[in-house]
Amino acid sequence: MSSGSQVQHLVVVSVIGVGLVGSELVDQLSHLPSPGLRDQFQVLSLSSSRSTVYYNIGSHQWQNWRNDLAASDVKSDAQALATKLTQISTVEEVAGLREGVSFSVIPVLVDNTSSEDVARLYPYFLSKGVNVVTPNKKAFSSELALYDEIVAASLKTGARFYNESTVGAGLPIISTIKDLVATGDKVSKIEGVFSGTLSYIFNEFSDGKSGNGPSFSSIVSIARQKGYTEPNPADDLNGADVARKLTILSRCIPSLRDKLPHGYKSVSTKSLVPAALHGESSGDEFIRKLSEYDQEFDKLRSDAFKENKVLRFVGVIDVASGTIKADLESYPNTHPFVTSLGGSDNIVMFHTERYGARPLIVQGAGAGAAVTAMGVLGDLLRFL
Amino acid sequence: MSSGSQVQHLVVVSVIGVGLVGSELVDQLSHLPSPGLRDQFQVLSLSSSRSTVYYNIGSHQWQNWRNDLAASDVKSDAQALATKLTQISTVEEVAGLREGVSFSVIPVLVDNTSSEDVARLYPYFLSKGVNVVTPNKKAFSSELALYDEIVAASLKTGARFYNESTVGAGLPIISTIKDLVATGDKVSKIEGVFSGTLSYIFNEFSDGKSGNGPSFSSIVSIARQKGYTEPNPADDLNGADVARKLTILSRCIPSLRDKLPHGYKSVSTKSLVPAALHGESSGDEFIRKLSEYDQEFDKLRSDAFKENKVLRFVGVIDVASGTIKADLESYPNTHPFVTSLGGSDNIVMFHTERYGARPLIVQGAGAGAAVTAMGVLGDLLRFL
Ligand SMILES: NC(=O)c1ccc[n+]([C@@H]2O[C@H](COP(=O)([O-])OP(=O)(O)OC[C@H]3O[C@@H](n4cnc5c(N)ncnc54)[C@H](OP(=O)(O)O)[C@@H]3O)[C@@H](O)[C@H]2O)c1
Ligand SMILES: NC(=O)c1ccc[n+]([C@@H]2O[C@H](COP(=O)([O-])OP(=O)(O)OC[C@H]3O[C@@H](n4cnc5c(N)ncnc54)[C@H](OP(=O)(O)O)[C@@H]3O)[C@@H](O)[C@H]2O)c1
Repeated sequence: MSSGSQVQHLVVVSVIGVGLVGSELVDQLSHLPSPGLRDQFQVLSLSSSRSTVYYNIGSHQWQNWRNDLAASDVKSDAQALATKLTQISTVEEVAGLREGVSFSVIPVLVDNTSSEDVARLYPYFLSKGVNVVTPNKKAFSSELALYDEIVAASLKTGARFYNESTVGAGLPIISTIKDLVATGDKVSKIEGVFSGTLSYIFNEFSDGKSGNGPSFSSIVSIARQKGYTEPNPADDLNGADVARKLTILSRCIPSLRDKLPHGYKSVSTKSLVPAALHGESSGDEFIRKLSEYDQEFDKLRSDAFKENKVLRFVGVIDVASGTIKADLESYPNTHPFVTSLGGSDNIVMFHTERYGARPLIVQGAGAGAAVTAMGVLGDLLRFL
Repeated sequence: MSSGSQVQHLVVVSVIGVGLVGSELVDQLSHLPSPGLRDQFQVLSLSSSRSTVYYNIGSHQWQNWRNDLAASDVKSDAQALATKLTQISTVEEVAGLREGVSFSVIPVLVDNTSSEDVARLYPYFLSKGVNVVTPNKKAFSSELALYDEIVAASLKTGARFYNESTVGAGLPIISTIKDLVATGDKVSKIEGVFSGTLSYIFNEFSDGKSGNGPSFSSIVSIARQKGYTEPNPADDLNGADVARKLTILSRCIPSLRDKLPHGYKSVSTKSLVPAALHGESSGDEFIRKLSEYDQEFDKLRSDAFKENKVLRFVGVIDVASGTIKADLESYPNTHPFVTSLGGSDNIVMFHTERYGARPLIVQGAGAGAAVTAMGVLGDLLRFL
């Protein structure tokens, strides 16, 4: 890095999970605009939950990966993957890749699943010196014990983990909180709209222009039709996704490290799922029954409107008091959560000592395969 | 980085310029919250325009740097500095620093001056394998030839340059545009309020609530008293600072690379300095004479107000048309430049293919020693 000798980094990537985000990532990686950068990446393997396909180092031959993967009968096997990735790290393996150039190999596991099982493998990979990059929230928002294992394994070997896309997809949110903390700023409060789905629903339901309007269940139903919700919207309305993101951010702040021993389950979370609908597993049924509660939501909306306020489902981390909560709050009409926010945008405000009275704000789409994969790819670029 | 062996990075920093930002940077560097990180930084030297003080590797003894620098009669000498920095890179120099640990040295020049002369040294340092980090806009916003030399020297040796704080201080703006471009997103337009001074002046002058109010010159005068302007406010009102920032951002977009051969001088820039005041070098005189033009500014304000608009001094990069301009524009009352902006904040909107109809937005203080130094330190952290 620092001298004139011809040593180049080669980031060798094993991708687990090639769904919406994973396949977009492979696509973006194959079409990096800079040829110089393209030469510094090598896909070693791609895995679905069924099978794995391996590629030779030096080949840029993963373009037909869909067919290759479908044709492969190699079973997915984490241990075999880790072994392959660490073997590759020995310089001999890549000697002769390009004449006169010696390569320093950086092995990276990219987890594009939402699997808790895959998340539990990170300590193992990190302990073998394999770096981890992922948009999967599970590892960082579950039990503190797992998170601690990840941090410890990373510290031991120097292998890194990056997870920018776990909060706000491609928006610079994790990198921002990490930089604030690492450089010694004092974060006092983080407040934001962290769920694209709930952003859309409340931007539509409570726009500040009137105290009534379409019913809550009708908007949830439209959001579902547009593909903005999980198959069962209860999985968005329960607030767990916001609680997971708050856990991930909180764990970047040392003084909050022990506040959430059980991860997102320790976050004070307001669920918008009526108690009677907790067991309802059919999305269609859920929406139908949700309409029975429309009057309750109507009242919340009109009460807020009477005070020139609107409803937003937000996440708040108050560092001084140690409060971490996902809640339905009302905000004055003049607040950026109302005036600036729209569509299914995320918005995050960082209140810190150095930023003083006016917070640092990041806003934009916080979901979608293209921006999520971009966040993952941005993390991969950090290894160069 | 990728294996379990005990190799640690040691970032060896030579700081040129210890004014507002430089001294805050040394302070932040000395008080990194993580002891692990603190051990990975070593200040090799500090230079004012008068003298330089050197420290031994392994000593964390630069705490009295103000006295040391005042007492030093070692002249500042770029060549001597480059030699020292590159010699340090040989592993022997730092052998035995900590038992059982071998260090890989990363030499970095940090330029906290606003000197064009220092900026012209970057190609030399980079060609010697010394990385460069700086909040100094000069090198990236002047002649394209200098910028090209910088890029070429960096490519040749692999030494890097980071300049996050040149636009928006500590806000993630340069890193964002770089990630968008590198990962293959198509940036269509960047639009923002890039000058904290002009942000404050127009937020006060044209708030959208009324078509009249305090005079333009009175607000400029208050801004000057608060220390928000240069000693002579003409140096803010001429738009050159905004043009420099637009140059820096434009050069991150390959298709705009050749658009600004003479850097900020090639940017289409609206100067708010009346022609008759161009030669006025006294700040006091400038303000006094500026009041003769208050009616012109009043008219602009009331004309905008009649259309429910406000005045903002913005920078716009329209990629498709290749338009790059710093201009006084009017925006509807409902625009984030009005509803969300306040104080002396910067705001930047990135319109891209992946972000679709709603831009990625970054907002917050874009000046001040603490946040600027933080941006510089954030750049330094990237070497680890
Ligand atoms: N989409 C977004 O907007 C977004 C935004 C932010 C974060 N994320 C996160 O990104 C991740 C991926 O999201 P997505 O939208 O791409 O989901 P998806 O389309 O459901 O893709 C997930 C893929 O993971 C695979 N998978 C599951 N378990 C596996 C295993 N043990 N081994 C190998 N593959 C396995 C599944 O393959 P099979 O079909 O073979 O089971 C599936 O194709 C999730 O963690 C999500 O929370 C997504
Ligand atoms: N302050 C901000 O809010 C802010 C925000 C963004 C970017 N920046 C940029 O950050 C840089 C520093 O700003 P600042 O506010 O710290 O300015 P400053 O207080 O004027 O400090 C600049 C320092 O550079 C020194 N210097 C000038 N030429 C030198 C040379 N050839 N060798 C060694 N030292 C030299 C000066 O020292 P002497 O007194 O010995 O000449 C002075 O102390 C500038 O490029 C500025 O544009 C500042």
